[in-house]
Amino acid sequence: MLVLITYDVSTVTSAGQKRLRKVAKICQRYGQRVQNSVFECIIDSTQFVSLKGKLTEIINESTDSLRFYQLGKNYKNKIEHIGSKETVDLEGPLLF
Amino acid sequence: MLVLITYDVSTVTSAGQKRLRKVAKICQRYGQRVQNSVFECIIDSTQFVSLKGKLTEIINESTDSLRFYQLGKNYKNKIEHIGSKETVDLEGPLLF
Repeated sequence: MLVLITYDVSTVTSAGQKRLRKVAKICQRYGQRVQNSVFECIIDSTQFVSLKGKLTEIINESTDSLRFYQLGKNYKNKIEHIGSKETVDLEGPLLF
Repeated sequence: MLVLITYDVSTVTSAGQKRLRKVAKICQRYGQRVQNSVFECIIDSTQFVSLKGKLTEIINESTDSLRFYQLGKNYKNKIEHIGSKETVDLEGPLLF
């Protein structure tokens, strides 16, 4: 299933920047960074539990906000993009 | 239905900040701002088309990224939040 993760952190401080880098690093193991603090991860329910645990350890719960949106398996026609940085199809064939 | 809107814009420039303010203002007519540049809008398909049109006019398509995720009607159990700024239930009763 696709899980969308949005992370709101102040990157004014270097500690905030560091947390965003750590969150991005973990999320990118499971999917892709589609915006600066938005990640699309293709995971099963077991991985989802594990991922939530890891991210919860990184963030500062009193200042940061982390949100998870489950888009299920048939997510392709539920997503639209306008503007720069169109992303690749994670599950599609790689064409060079 | 719930449509999640994520907007990636550089707020280093005042023009970027201004675009974010405009996007926020329009999205907040239909829902709530759950993170700095993440909005949850409760709209029907006609309003969705109109909203996309309005936002497309505001953003700078060559530098900004705007993404829409359709979460359908049964979205409540698809969303999880960790950390600060828990949001209110838009459709629930207002309790004081």
